[in-house]
Amino acid sequence: MNFRALVEDIAGRARLAGNRVAELPSDVKDGALQRVASRLEASCDAILEANARDLEAGRAAGIAPPLLDRLTLTPARIGAMAQGLRDIAALPDPIGEITRMWMRPSGLQVGRMRIPLGVILVIYESRPNVTADVAGLCLKSGNAAVLRGGSEAFHSNSAIAEIFRGTARESGIPEDAVQLVPHTDREIVDLLLEREDEIDLVIPRGGEGLIRRVAENSRIPVIKHYKGVCHVYVDRHADPKMARDITINSKCQRVSVCNSAETLLVHETLAQSWLPPLLAELRGLGVEIRGCPLTLEQCEDGLAATEHDWREEYLDKVLAVRVVDSMDQGIDHIRRYGSNHTETIVTQDLRTAREFVRRVNSSCVFVNASTRLSDGFQLGLGAEVGISTTKMHWYGPMGIEGLTTQKFIAFGDGTLIE
Amino acid sequence: MNFRALVEDIAGRARLAGNRVAELPSDVKDGALQRVASRLEASCDAILEANARDLEAGRAAGIAPPLLDRLTLTPARIGAMAQGLRDIAALPDPIGEITRMWMRPSGLQVGRMRIPLGVILVIYESRPNVTADVAGLCLKSGNAAVLRGGSEAFHSNSAIAEIFRGTARESGIPEDAVQLVPHTDREIVDLLLEREDEIDLVIPRGGEGLIRRVAENSRIPVIKHYKGVCHVYVDRHADPKMARDITINSKCQRVSVCNSAETLLVHETLAQSWLPPLLAELRGLGVEIRGCPLTLEQCEDGLAATEHDWREEYLDKVLAVRVVDSMDQGIDHIRRYGSNHTETIVTQDLRTAREFVRRVNSSCVFVNASTRLSDGFQLGLGAEVGISTTKMHWYGPMGIEGLTTQKFIAFGDGTLIE
Repeated sequence: MNFRALVEDIAGRARLAGNRVAELPSDVKDGALQRVASRLEASCDAILEANARDLEAGRAAGIAPPLLDRLTLTPARIGAMAQGLRDIAALPDPIGEITRMWMRPSGLQVGRMRIPLGVILVIYESRPNVTADVAGLCLKSGNAAVLRGGSEAFHSNSAIAEIFRGTARESGIPEDAVQLVPHTDREIVDLLLEREDEIDLVIPRGGEGLIRRVAENSRIPVIKHYKGVCHVYVDRHADPKMARDITINSKCQRVSVCNSAETLLVHETLAQSWLPPLLAELRGLGVEIRGCPLTLEQCEDGLAATEHDWREEYLDKVLAVRVVDSMDQGIDHIRRYGSNHTETIVTQDLRTAREFVRRVNSSCVFVNASTRLSDGFQLGLGAEVGISTTKMHWYGPMGIEGLTTQKFIAFGDGTLIE
Repeated sequence: MNFRALVEDIAGRARLAGNRVAELPSDVKDGALQRVASRLEASCDAILEANARDLEAGRAAGIAPPLLDRLTLTPARIGAMAQGLRDIAALPDPIGEITRMWMRPSGLQVGRMRIPLGVILVIYESRPNVTADVAGLCLKSGNAAVLRGGSEAFHSNSAIAEIFRGTARESGIPEDAVQLVPHTDREIVDLLLEREDEIDLVIPRGGEGLIRRVAENSRIPVIKHYKGVCHVYVDRHADPKMARDITINSKCQRVSVCNSAETLLVHETLAQSWLPPLLAELRGLGVEIRGCPLTLEQCEDGLAATEHDWREEYLDKVLAVRVVDSMDQGIDHIRRYGSNHTETIVTQDLRTAREFVRRVNSSCVFVNASTRLSDGFQLGLGAEVGISTTKMHWYGPMGIEGLTTQKFIAFGDGTLIE
């Protein structure tokens, strides 16, 4: 197979489709999203059948149970995918929005208008719902999407993408607005990452290994986050019950995701009162503690935290715990060891809360809320196409706004420069 | 000289200074900018003396008169630099601005707050005023600046940077907030472009060669524009006098800059009426015409435009001219040959103007205004740190807003995820 020719063809089609998608009126885009949603539900059996083939191959290949779970589709999960598309359809169209307009002394009226980026390449693993989410977000924001899903979900992704393309054709949308790469060889990814003239942005979604490989090989800008070392800082002025709830929710509600907490920072005034029962409760929930010396005084079966623990994304029932002498020390810890993902403070003191929010420059900074709320849906973006922990272009969970840019527009009346 | 150690030292200092500058209150930053402005004026003689050394060396090396002109400082130019800094001081502080805030059904109040990028590296040629402009824009936006000016302006840049650093010290600002690289060897640029852990953004300002070299060698994101092939499209509904004024202003007011017009597109209904006297007038102003066949029918001494002419940034008294049969054809021409810099339409028809603005996705799209108005000062950004013709992060002339990003902030009251 000549992969180079295949990739050239895909990239060229995407560029042409992107030019047309950029000009589609809102009702055409939203109508198509609604129709895809209905079609997904109506095609539930066919999608489940394709999914069954992936699951069978996965079981035969012996892939791990958590991965099998992420790969599995059910009627409820297909329904959630459809609802996701309806939610995206209901969002305001970002394209053409004039975000600001002002008058210059020359008489020139200047503004900024939102436009699509062009062509978005998303490289992802296992979860087939990403196919529908990303295709929907890209279409809504006037971009063409090139999707390269994992080999383990190939049949499921193909079934979903085909429904998208078939519906597009009938809805006045170029079918190449969404292309699923028809092979999963790794060589194709490398070839795609060279197409800087046709592809405007790459979003890798998956493990740190995948993301580093993409970032290191891409000539195209990459939206990325390597890991989520999220912190809960419990201030001396925290409501004790709230601090307990937020810590346990942030750590335990789902341990395998990037927005779960990995490190608890506790103000020293709470080290002998609030902390011991909390540690006991966490132990009861099966959470292993890696503590600083002051923490270990309160936790007989904890392990001593090493420098490595402060930087670790456990994605498991493990929590690093450190007692700090002040919020300053807590903020220093976050700056030194954090990953710019999500940090939360628990406090009832307004001055403390304001200072934490002002001084911590991670991509998500919360007050009295679980770190697990850090995702596009919970924050009100409708859905997310990825998360950025680097500051260029977008910072934090990224929805349709991050898939756009703004051009300058200006209206004069024969306005010249002197 | 061990350049690697020097660059490590500069980058490390910049990162530390950046952390501190990010937290400075507005009045400290603005006070420092005001003091630098006064100090520049008060040190006029010393700056002119340093400039005289550069000019002498430049003449001895036989550099071209336009370059010498850009290198030359005068009391008026130093005054303009000082006024530029006062203008920047008068802008609202972007840092800490909450651009939007909304409520989620969970009770979470979510917003986005503007923060600095961190450390900005600017690589530039000849004009010493860039030193003051960039240092001012970076300080205002809470970033540390690493400046690498051209060797031909080394003494002038050093004098200006020293005033900045000395004033910073006295104003409660870390002096390493602004560092001028003390050598101009090209090897240093390559070493700086490797410091992705300390430097967040690179802005090359200069010729296409410099910009390509930086873009190809940088591990750090680059804000760039290679060239400005700007178009004037004169619609059938144009006011003839206004169309003449805008064409001549866009082409002739200053030919050597990226926002001057290089191609004129004319609706065919004007080919035999409005166009011939305009071409004659341009010829009288010394402008050479490279025309399409229909244009050449109206211009005896014009040259036939080749494919190459439509892509060329002349930066000279040369204008490519094409007669088009419709705005569609004009827009297709701009998309095919343009550089995403600046395009302007001259028309009195509202529907035509709206369609041009909607469909042309260059970084600046104007109606009835000269392309020469496309710069940060004219558009109301105070000044500009560079221009981006790629859509990632920023598009168009970039002032202090482009030197920032936005983090998510969220306030709950013990808000958890189910």
